Amino acid sequence: MNYSNQQSTRQEPAPVPSPATQPASGPLTREELQLAARNHSMPLEALRRDVTPPGLHYVLTHFDIPDLDGSSWHLRIGGAVERALELGMAALRRDPAITVPVTLECAGNGRSLLEPRPLSQPWVLEAVGTAHWTGVPLAYLLGKAGVLPDAVEVVFTGADAGVQGGVPQRYARSLPIREALRPDVVLAYQMNGTDLPPQHGYPLRLVVPGWYGMASVKWLESIEVVKTPFAGFQQEVAYRYQDSADDAGTPVSRIRVRSLMVPPGVPDFFSRRRFLRPGPVMLEGRAWSGEGAVTAVDVGIDGTWLPAHLDKPAGGYAWRRWTLPWVANPGEHVLSCRATDITGATQPLEQAWNFQGMGNNVVQRVPVTVE
Amino acid sequence: MNYSNQQSTRQEPAPVPSPATQPASGPLTREELQLAARNHSMPLEALRRDVTPPGLHYVLTHFDIPDLDGSSWHLRIGGAVERALELGMAALRRDPAITVPVTLECAGNGRSLLEPRPLSQPWVLEAVGTAHWTGVPLAYLLGKAGVLPDAVEVVFTGADAGVQGGVPQRYARSLPIREALRPDVVLAYQMNGTDLPPQHGYPLRLVVPGWYGMASVKWLESIEVVKTPFAGFQQEVAYRYQDSADDAGTPVSRIRVRSLMVPPGVPDFFSRRRFLRPGPVMLEGRAWSGEGAVTAVDVGIDGTWLPAHLDKPAGGYAWRRWTLPWVANPGEHVLSCRATDITGATQPLEQAWNFQGMGNNVVQRVPVTVE
Repeated sequence: MNYSNQQSTRQEPAPVPSPATQPASGPLTREELQLAARNHSMPLEALRRDVTPPGLHYVLTHFDIPDLDGSSWHLRIGGAVERALELGMAALRRDPAITVPVTLECAGNGRSLLEPRPLSQPWVLEAVGTAHWTGVPLAYLLGKAGVLPDAVEVVFTGADAGVQGGVPQRYARSLPIREALRPDVVLAYQMNGTDLPPQHGYPLRLVVPGWYGMASVKWLESIEVVKTPFAGFQQEVAYRYQDSADDAGTPVSRIRVRSLMVPPGVPDFFSRRRFLRPGPVMLEGRAWSGEGAVTAVDVGIDGTWLPAHLDKPAGGYAWRRWTLPWVANPGEHVLSCRATDITGATQPLEQAWNFQGMGNNVVQRVPVTVE
Repeated sequence: MNYSNQQSTRQEPAPVPSPATQPASGPLTREELQLAARNHSMPLEALRRDVTPPGLHYVLTHFDIPDLDGSSWHLRIGGAVERALELGMAALRRDPAITVPVTLECAGNGRSLLEPRPLSQPWVLEAVGTAHWTGVPLAYLLGKAGVLPDAVEVVFTGADAGVQGGVPQRYARSLPIREALRPDVVLAYQMNGTDLPPQHGYPLRLVVPGWYGMASVKWLESIEVVKTPFAGFQQEVAYRYQDSADDAGTPVSRIRVRSLMVPPGVPDFFSRRRFLRPGPVMLEGRAWSGEGAVTAVDVGIDGTWLPAHLDKPAGGYAWRRWTLPWVANPGEHVLSCRATDITGATQPLEQAWNFQGMGNNVVQRVPVTVE
């Protein structure tokens, strides 16, 4: 088994096998529990923060976190370019840098709510986070290398290796040329002003604002410009909206509109049921969309929808804070929130199922007890 | 419901109710999945690192992570002392500081392996981490305050509030005076050289080397010296070794001896099954004990035990690295590791059940496929 070259674009396009596992009804499996213990989502109280620190920001690692040495690491840029480049961290840090506030969300967020449940990372609904990513614009480096006119995509390969769906591979994804040349796509070496933590891609990762997290390849080692569409596992098999195992489906790309709420009051440790006192409460949360600006958030209180106040956006692809004052009366209540973006897309009240459990942006519902 | 004073030591000792939930056989519950998504363990590949960065170090938060302002926060020290104190962060930073390398582990680590399964945070086996904690020795501040001669315990109360086992509470735990006066018990404001991250107790936490993590109270707001043993929920009800719901049990305190291994090779994404090539492999991991120095680690290869090499310890209560070269032959193998400490305690080959699923230090077993 050779883990280092399985995703080479010189291979013939892979056939599209179905994932190894079929969706399951019923109990969570030991495999899902192991994944839930390894990877982590963002505790919802962290929605209070504009910026999510490491350890609160969601993390999904497909294989193992590589243990890379930033001083000897190099990035290779090649393929359909005029000049292949090989750059160390010192060289990259001398290039012009930008800082972009970006909300990243896992495409599988909400998967564990589906029935039957697609077997993969069993996210509930908080696989999200917002950070300030600092690094070199990808477009700048592609400009240095010189993209040939007949190039169609750019392939990004990380140092992380393993097996998925029976296929040995290094994690690799591509972007169409027009996305790769957007001015806000960044090769980031800092998160929130300090070197990337190991689990977020040290020493260098791609960050693609507006796309689900799978596009933002971590532990980046190679950028290859290609003249035919990339057919790697994470592009052709994983991360697709499919009706069934036999459906080729459509690729997952931009983040669907979504909002989440800081659950008010205090929790029960085990059930996470919320308890609060009667009286005025400021409900708050964040909303985001990879398709364009969030234009409205409606808050549901026992089924009655009220428009929330929206703060100014912090950036094109960073979440937007919303607030709504509520007077809590004793009893049992269900709170929810629902965002709409500039395209008119809004969150569904009932979730739609798909084979891999992708893009489930159903509205959050928070039952609370007011005592 | 009053969340701010339920753990006051002026209360009568609480009766000992049984926890709300009985152990379960069978599928993981939605409540356990929610906890697994919120709290996170340490990916085992992070055992390669002497020091665990935030986001890789395990975190267990009973209630919500409080959003504290370090500039207005104050620590109160009172009770059976000659002089009550109230200190802000600026004052604490002027006091003498120490840095202690400490391995912290959750007392519930290994819980999900038990059958029937106690219902709480469903840890698999990696709820651990090692950090350098910097702050003021607790003994120094207790000396400043002057502990009265008839004091028996010190009670630590955090800012985190909620309900557990039906009891509204702020998280609170006590230490016997002799433990509180140990020179290495620290009121930490830094983790690995920078301000505590929110999830690790910002702006100040207790760190009790050698004890399971529940003793190291986060988001510390109050230290109260008491003349009668503290009877709060996290002392009298939770964190006990019990045979059944009716057994008063014995309190959980020091960390039982344990070792873990970096799983060799590369993983399958979903099953975490390991794959490696034939040939020499350096097996490695870490071992620790809260009872005293680790004196031996034995590595089991298909049931044959071999002594591992131990590196020099990094501190009295920090994990110790072990290594063992292995020549992997094609086929299926099971690797395991088993530590022994200076008291002669060693890890059990078969786990012992207890009602809350505490202190399960059964040996880790890693199935691998050599191709």
